[in-house]
Formats: sequence, structure tokens, C-alpha cells
Amino acid sequence: MANDKRPNDDRFERGARALASIDGHAGQKVVDALADIAPDFARYLIEFPFGDIYSRPGLDLRAREIATIAALTAMGNAAPQLKVHIQAGLNVGLTREEVVEILMQMAVYAGFPAALNGLFAAKEVFAARGG
Amino acid sequence: MANDKRPNDDRFERGARALASIDGHAGQKVVDALADIAPDFARYLIEFPFGDIYSRPGLDLRAREIATIAALTAMGNAAPQLKVHIQAGLNVGLTREEVVEILMQMAVYAGFPAALNGLFAAKEVFAARGG
Amino acid sequence: MANDKRPNDDRFERGARALASIDGHAGQKVVDALADIAPDFARYLIEFPFGDIYSRPGLDLRAREIATIAALTAMGNAAPQLKVHIQAGLNVGLTREEVVEILMQMAVYAGFPAALNGLFAAKEVFAARGG
Amino acid sequence: MANDKRPNDDRFERGARALASIDGHAGQKVVDALADIAPDFARYLIEFPFGDIYSRPGLDLRAREIATIAALTAMGNAAPQLKVHIQAGLNVGLTREEVVEILMQMAVYAGFPAALNGLFAAKEVFAARGG
Amino acid sequence: MANDKRPNDDRFERGARALASIDGHAGQKVVDALADIAPDFARYLIEFPFGDIYSRPGLDLRAREIATIAALTAMGNAAPQLKVHIQAGLNVGLTREEVVEILMQMAVYAGFPAALNGLFAAKEVFAARGG
Amino acid sequence: MANDKRPNDDRFERGARALASIDGHAGQKVVDALADIAPDFARYLIEFPFGDIYSRPGLDLRAREIATIAALTAMGNAAPQLKVHIQAGLNVGLTREEVVEILMQMAVYAGFPAALNGLFAAKEVFAARGG
Repeated sequence: MANDKRPNDDRFERGARALASIDGHAGQKVVDALADIAPDFARYLIEFPFGDIYSRPGLDLRAREIATIAALTAMGNAAPQLKVHIQAGLNVGLTREEVVEILMQMAVYAGFPAALNGLFAAKEVFAARGG
Repeated sequence: MANDKRPNDDRFERGARALASIDGHAGQKVVDALADIAPDFARYLIEFPFGDIYSRPGLDLRAREIATIAALTAMGNAAPQLKVHIQAGLNVGLTREEVVEILMQMAVYAGFPAALNGLFAAKEVFAARGG
Repeated sequence: MANDKRPNDDRFERGARALASIDGHAGQKVVDALADIAPDFARYLIEFPFGDIYSRPGLDLRAREIATIAALTAMGNAAPQLKVHIQAGLNVGLTREEVVEILMQMAVYAGFPAALNGLFAAKEVFAARGG
Repeated sequence: MANDKRPNDDRFERGARALASIDGHAGQKVVDALADIAPDFARYLIEFPFGDIYSRPGLDLRAREIATIAALTAMGNAAPQLKVHIQAGLNVGLTREEVVEILMQMAVYAGFPAALNGLFAAKEVFAARGG
Repeated sequence: MANDKRPNDDRFERGARALASIDGHAGQKVVDALADIAPDFARYLIEFPFGDIYSRPGLDLRAREIATIAALTAMGNAAPQLKVHIQAGLNVGLTREEVVEILMQMAVYAGFPAALNGLFAAKEVFAARGG
Repeated sequence: MANDKRPNDDRFERGARALASIDGHAGQKVVDALADIAPDFARYLIEFPFGDIYSRPGLDLRAREIATIAALTAMGNAAPQLKVHIQAGLNVGLTREEVVEILMQMAVYAGFPAALNGLFAAKEVFAARGG
């Protein structure tokens, strides 16, 4: 149950718009899946990452998705979120070739297994989007 | 002792140029520090990350440093390398504001401590560069 | 094969009782699954974590499960064990709402993906326990 | 520079009160250290972790600090934040013995080195507080 | 597409031989799976880990696989690669009992969940190899 | 305060002998440093890792130290323990060259920063041992 009686409308609305334009359908699915267990967390997810961070003007969305894809690949313990952000990267203008370059580069910083697991996640995402 | 009698000259030379242009003095210091304990590893460091990966045409150096800064901040266990790459990011054209945006964004993916430690690393690097 | 001829009966019996009361069926399944590959490891699992640590008087089981659920969520690479301990937390008196609070809090320390993956693990555990 | 013209006063004020009561002097030092490099991040730190999460009614502060101490010890890559939260745990009512119990328990989930490094961090904090 | 017109034949051939003798079928499957998404990465995988590192004379393959099995178990986020290297360990002369010893030992350094997940990975590999 | 009135003498004595022969002075220093904060943890450290695991006959100490050095290097968040085990590896018969080989190999599995930080830890240990 939320302890915020009056939602912070600006952040939420700005975040909801950012989430929709970046993650599209995949972002909404995460929000929906939280509805019965942690609805407040869905609100936080929209407000802080998307309403606060992704909406900041100092770095464009293409650069932000490069950072996120790199981080999730290197951490290696967040496969569902990595797939969402490989999609998001393509949505905001990264090419498949660029996504593959980012993933390969992670072999240098997090090892070959992290890069391989990232590449196989990308392969699934690319296949699901088609030719 | 190296087990490669004939070094792979192209990769090494291309890597040495890339390392010098990206990491400058800091990269050379790492290579020098390896000389007495693992000289072959200095060669690998030049050949694979810099001769192979950073020299690939599919992603520009600015994007590559965004990926590396994000990954090292998220992993949170490679402070010396993160500082080298914050410098490298500035060397290849990122502004200080952009570096700060990348570091703040990592709070979303790796938590506030990882972002804070990244920001304090950047503060040291910025102070050392002056201005 | 064990290299301990004479098992340390007190620790083992105390640990077996603690394991049964905390993890119940799920703990026994882990022990059984080890029988053909590493029976000594099943014994260590009973003796050290349960016979030594969980049996210590300085912290109650509710607090111990808060710590374990938080740690496994933050590490993000031990999904089966996290599910066992979400169950264990409920067994020793945490409410579902309290478990959800712990998981959401991990977004602060380990990032939103770790918290999301923890919440979806809890959703599975709650559903399996029913209503 | 902030992209939020109108700060979300309720969250910020609630968060500032929570930060002061939990982390005291140590929390304010972190906020101050961010002032010249990422003042917006200081605001986010107050608003999301403290204004949103720690202010939620579903889990008391003692339980929240158990979770945070456990998570930071297990992750093992956030020593400054672990020390702040060992202090915070003592501030909100954990005894030194309870803190030590949490840290020792992490040997089970994250290994003996993580527990040892947590215990040595606690030793520093305890010594600084005296007595 | 490769940016190396002239492949470094010695490293590639030496690496391909090492990969075949160590990982056998499993290594070739990884290389094949990369063919349509990142063929250059398959080449790097053969050249650097196998052509450079595993081909070095200073440590025998049995010792190298002990190191790799330990590392992948401790990291806990590379299950497919761990299974490949449990197989590789058996291929280069480790007994099943020795593999189990390495995995159990990781409980000390990375926690019981990491060791358990390693043991269950080994159980799958052993079962697939038969009796 | 210990909750074990009667210590498990066999495990403790066997562990104390193993610790002394493997880690020597460095192991005793860790035990001493725990005396005022967590004396029971010193006992667990002797009993489980050394009395139980390192004393098992199925893998020799040289192989066990290869596994530990690899794991701690790959995890990258346990520098003090890595130094202790680089020493331990030399104590049980690894050569400096072999230690360096293990550390370099970790670049493949955990990235170049992990390997570099391991190599610089070894450099310190080698220098402290002299010649």
C-alpha cells in the first residue's frame, strides 16, 4: 500500500511518457506484472529511473541505452532487464551492429562469459523482432 | 616469458596507438607497472582490448567509453580502472557533465552506493585535471 | 566420502532441527539432491549454516531471514536459494508485506533489476503457497 | 543542474528528516560531498531512498538496517556505505552484538572474505564511537 | 564483419586446436552459435583465451581448468560456461571427485548458494556423460 | 559469546594445524584481529574452511590454492584475502610464475581489470617476500 497520498504527478507523468517511448510494450509488461505484488514499486520504477534519470537533458537516450546495456551485460545477473534494454536501445536508434559492438566490448571488462551471455540475449531479441 | 616468438605486429602497433590516444599517460603507466611481473599481459592488454576491440569501426570511441564507464561503475570492484576510463572518456570528447550523467544513471541498475563511489572517483579525476 | 569418522553429533542434530523448522520441506529437498553427488556437503550445510550460525542466540530467526533475503536479492545470482529463504521468512513470522518491503528496499542498494527479480521470485513463492 | 524546476517538497522534506534521524552526521557528509559535482544526485538520494523507501510504514527502521547491512556486506564492494549503515543500525537500535551476528551470517551466503571484511569495517566503526 | 584483413593465423590455429582438445563439442557449439550474430567474437574467443592463454606453457591444463571452474562457480552468473568447463575439466584429467572438491570449496569464498549451484551444474554434466 | 560449550576439538585442532601450515603468520593475524569483535567467528574460520574443507583428502593443497586464488581474483572484492592466499599458494608449492599464470587467465573469465588488480596484489606480495 502506498504511503504517498498525493502522487507526484509531474514525475509520474513524465516518467510514464519516457517509459512508453523507450521500453514500449516491454516496460508496460513489467509494470503490469507488479500490480498484484508491489504496485508502489511500479510507481517508483516510473518515477525515479524514468521520471528523474532518463528525462534529464544532459545525455541523450542513445547514450543512456549504451550505458545501460553495458552495465547489465557486465553485471551478468539481470537477463530479463538486459533483453528489455537491448530492445530499448534499438527503439532509440542504436543499430544491431552497435548493440553487438557494446556486448563484445564487455569481454574486456567483465570477461568472455558475460559477453557471450549478452550476445545470446541479443540473438533472442533480434530473432523476436524479425529479419 | 612470452610463448609467442613472433609478435603479431599489426595488432600490437594498432593497439599501442589506440591505447596512447585513448588512455594517454595512464595507460602507459599500467603497461610499465606490468613490466617486471607479467610483461606478456601488458602485450595482451594492448593487443586484445585496444588492438582488437577499441580499433573496430562499428562504434565510435565516445560510445565505447560511455559503455566502459558504465560497466566499471556498475561492477564496483575496479576503482583504478574506472578512474583511467573517466579520464579516457574526457580525452575522447565526453564532457564532465556527461560523465556525471552516466554515473548517476548507474544508481538505477547497480544501486546508489555504486553510483556514489563512481561520482567520488570522478571528483578525484576532475580535481587532478584542474579547472 | 567424508573424512570425519566421528560426526560432530551436537552440531549436526542441532542443525537438522534448525533446518527443519526454518526451511521445512525445501531444505530437505536440497539435502536429498546432494545425496548422490556430495553427501558431505549436505552435512556441512546442516552443520555450519544451521548448526552453528542460525542456532546462535544473539539474533532471532525473523531478523536472520531479513538479512538472508536482503543479501540473496542484492547478490542476484542465487534465485533458487532466494525462493527457499522467502519461504523460510514466512515460516518464521515475516508477513508477505514485510518480505515485499525488504525486496523493494534492495533497489536502493543493488539496483532496480535486482529488486524486480526478487519481487518476481516472491510472486512465485506466494502463488505456490496459495491465497 | 537540476531539470526539476519545482522540487517535490513533501518527499524531499520527509527524506531529509529520515536521513538525519537514521544516518545523522554521516549522511549529511555524503550530501555535502556531492554539492560540487552532482547536487541533483544528493536530492535524489534524499528523495528516493529516504523520502520514498525508508519512510514507508510496512517495515521498521531496525529491520530495514538489518537488510541494508546484510546486503552491503554480501555485495562486498561498498565499504564506505557499509560503515555508514553499521552506524545507522546502531542509531536505530541494533546492538553491537546484533550487528556482529548479521555480519557473521553473511559468511554463509557470500563467503568468509565478505564476512571478514564486514567485521573489520564494524571494528572501525565501533572504535570510532568509543566505549 | 572482421576489421582484420589478414587473420593472425598462428594464434587462430593454435587456439582452434586448444579449444578442440579442451572443450571438444561444447566449444564448437559456442563458436557455431556466434556465426550469425558476432562471427568476429568467435574468432576472438579462439584467439585470446585459447590461442594466447590456454596455450601458454607455464601452467598445465588440469591446473587451468581448476582455476576456471573455481572462478565461474564463485562468480555465480555464468551457468552455461561453468557446465562447459566442468566438462573441460573432466576432458583434461580431473576426476569427478576432484571437480566436486573444487565446487564444495567455493562455499568458503563465495557462499553456500554459489557452491550448491555449482554442484547441481556438475550433477547435470555428470548425468549427461553417463555412468 | 559462543553458544558451543564444548568445542569440537578434532575439527578445531585439525583446522588450526591446516591454517598454520597453509597461511602461516597471515592466518594467525586474521584470527588475532577477530579476538575482540567476533571470537566465535575466528573459531568458525578455523573449523569450517580449514578443519573441514582444506583437510579433505580428495584434492591436494596446491590445487586448492589454485582454486582459491582464481576465485578471489575473479570476484574482485576481497583484496586482503587474495594477498593471504597468494602467499598461501607460494607456501604450498606454487611458483611465482604459476601464480601469475592463474591471475592472467582470470582476464578471460572476469575481465582485464580483475586480472590487473590480481597482478598488482601479487606484485606486493612478491616484493614483501623479497628476492
